[in-house]
Amino acid sequence: MTLFDKQKAYAELLATHGLNVQPGQIVNISTEPFHKDFALLVAEAAYKHGAKFVNVDLTDMRLVKLRIENSNEESLKYVPSFIASKYSELVDEVGANLKIVGPEDPDLLSDLDPKKINIQRMYQRQAIQYFYDEGIGKSKVHWTVAAAATPAWAKKIFPKKSAEDAYAALWDNIFSMCRVDRADCLQAWKAHNTLLANRAKKLNELKLKELHFTGPGTDLRVGLHERSKFKGGTDISPRGVPFEPNIPTEEVFTTPDYRETNGKVRATRPFLINGKLIQGLTMEFKDGNIVDFKAESGAETFSEYISSDEGARRLGEVALVGIDSPIYQTGLIFEEILFDENAACHIAVGSAYKFCIEGGDTLDSSEAKNIGCNESSVHTDMMISSEEVDVVAKTYSGKTIELIKNGAWKEF
Amino acid sequence: MTLFDKQKAYAELLATHGLNVQPGQIVNISTEPFHKDFALLVAEAAYKHGAKFVNVDLTDMRLVKLRIENSNEESLKYVPSFIASKYSELVDEVGANLKIVGPEDPDLLSDLDPKKINIQRMYQRQAIQYFYDEGIGKSKVHWTVAAAATPAWAKKIFPKKSAEDAYAALWDNIFSMCRVDRADCLQAWKAHNTLLANRAKKLNELKLKELHFTGPGTDLRVGLHERSKFKGGTDISPRGVPFEPNIPTEEVFTTPDYRETNGKVRATRPFLINGKLIQGLTMEFKDGNIVDFKAESGAETFSEYISSDEGARRLGEVALVGIDSPIYQTGLIFEEILFDENAACHIAVGSAYKFCIEGGDTLDSSEAKNIGCNESSVHTDMMISSEEVDVVAKTYSGKTIELIKNGAWKEF
Repeated sequence: MTLFDKQKAYAELLATHGLNVQPGQIVNISTEPFHKDFALLVAEAAYKHGAKFVNVDLTDMRLVKLRIENSNEESLKYVPSFIASKYSELVDEVGANLKIVGPEDPDLLSDLDPKKINIQRMYQRQAIQYFYDEGIGKSKVHWTVAAAATPAWAKKIFPKKSAEDAYAALWDNIFSMCRVDRADCLQAWKAHNTLLANRAKKLNELKLKELHFTGPGTDLRVGLHERSKFKGGTDISPRGVPFEPNIPTEEVFTTPDYRETNGKVRATRPFLINGKLIQGLTMEFKDGNIVDFKAESGAETFSEYISSDEGARRLGEVALVGIDSPIYQTGLIFEEILFDENAACHIAVGSAYKFCIEGGDTLDSSEAKNIGCNESSVHTDMMISSEEVDVVAKTYSGKTIELIKNGAWKEF
Repeated sequence: MTLFDKQKAYAELLATHGLNVQPGQIVNISTEPFHKDFALLVAEAAYKHGAKFVNVDLTDMRLVKLRIENSNEESLKYVPSFIASKYSELVDEVGANLKIVGPEDPDLLSDLDPKKINIQRMYQRQAIQYFYDEGIGKSKVHWTVAAAATPAWAKKIFPKKSAEDAYAALWDNIFSMCRVDRADCLQAWKAHNTLLANRAKKLNELKLKELHFTGPGTDLRVGLHERSKFKGGTDISPRGVPFEPNIPTEEVFTTPDYRETNGKVRATRPFLINGKLIQGLTMEFKDGNIVDFKAESGAETFSEYISSDEGARRLGEVALVGIDSPIYQTGLIFEEILFDENAACHIAVGSAYKFCIEGGDTLDSSEAKNIGCNESSVHTDMMISSEEVDVVAKTYSGKTIELIKNGAWKEF
């Protein structure tokens, strides 16, 4: 198979197993201009499956940079209302939304003022809060995040290869991690989703009260509310259509009781915030809040980020991933959260998923607070496991269960 | 000066003399992905002049093609409402709108079903009628149409040159036609606009009743209402800010009394409709309607187009351009209306400009009809002059005045 053939198969996977485009649906695809040919393949697959209208937003990130460089903080708070209109329409029309990540220039934003870039990002996100609450939070939109390769990004992952070889290698890894290179691709996805769903189901049956992460630099306890429930893999829209929010996906995740987070934790992989790589991060939590942190690089950006709002220094997610993950198995650091979060256990500061709370759909702000379900305009995953990290759970009935030992899932 | 330096100067001209971006304004730039680097230069200039937010829509025309190929006629009528929202916001926020034309693949749409492509275009345009009525018709939006070169388009204009040389030659022509290559660029534009404004003023003072075009295959009389007024060059927004709707612009134009169009006319240059080149067109008008036409190519497309609605076979514009036009002087056929319409006198079927009617701002549909001001969802210019064409005017006071002889303006 040529690269094009594999891209075509991948595009088909995204339109069907990912978005699961339904006849008459509107589809939005957001990506950088570099990916226009690949986006077109997805659009074609979407039309073949009956889409009524496919919109492709090609966002040149240099334009975002230009704006931040040329605007003051006040001006960066402005977001034209047509952006909200578009994302609201996707919710109200039960549309599909694909985000194709993969930066053409990974370092583009790294030299900008962290405060200004954070303001721009925060207001842009708040402007489409309805989409996050209803479209994503209540699964009304068929949404998928997936990645496509670029030469500059590939060079970051394979610094010793030429840009061309690195680009080809990254595509190969994407196809492999997304099971596109398997003849039984769709069956493999089905089996994988069953595995994730069963894992979540078992965890929910255990009624966990706490996850205890230990390893070098890490001794962290994350509390779970009695109403917390684990999810993994396929999501289902209110009208009963399954879709895959992340391709690939290897995690089972839940909403913690943010108030019950205590201890120290060391990030095991770098991660990006507002275009800046945060490396060598250690944090200390006390009664739910980050009370101290250190970072070898990106400290200023991280500091700005967790000061975005009250909820930005509290946990909104905890997720379990074993070293059986094909993303972990590549041995690569992708500097792209879609991949890296599926390589290791992770916690996220920022907004929590209400769909991971029993009856969470109708939870208002004060009820959310009462059960430690965090609210924020930010959400960033931070990987905290490796082959040196263990995860032990405590149940509400007082049992202790070893879930992950040396990074690998145990029978439980 | 390098190509980049000239593009930068051109971008500055578009942001200042074209859009005349004001502090705090929102700016929209629509173009094809090929022009993303040039659009970025305009965006940068817009931010330097105080823009609050610059949106760049990169529309991959292959996506439009995909949709038309994969959708039935009914489905093509659908337009998501966020598109109207965006263009309404540009009007209501007194924004600026730049369209950068220049096709990456000029023949992309030429093989599609003319009926389907026309439906897609018509409904897309109707969806933003408010923008056309208020933003353009009442000059509430600072709007400009300009062009940027692409290799494939350049090869059409310079078929004997290599794609690379053709591309360079087209840019050179654009810079020259747009006066970008002149050290006194802005003064040259000022002088030119004064010339066009004076020409329009003189024509208005004459109170013309009819324009009579004669030449090979052409004997056409176009009636003007007593309220018709000529315009040319700079436009001024309701808040008093001048902007340049077309760069370049060489025409003085007005809204005819469509009912008083009679005779035969031959198009002197090919022109595009819905991506298809219409060549060798001759038309016969009777009491305002096209009653017969022939075309050497594109006849089916033209037939669909003038059947779009009732007004599509009636005149909405008549414009005078002399052979002193720098676009004419290039001796080139651009197959791009922005340039070709500024190389020769032209008429347009379709919607008329109410701003070319005395008191036209408050004209409702039935009043418009009463003075022969055409309404339609289409508007396409057709060039009808050459060095063999004369234009003689009759005034309401019964005088006959020679305006253009052998294609050249006379003193009048």
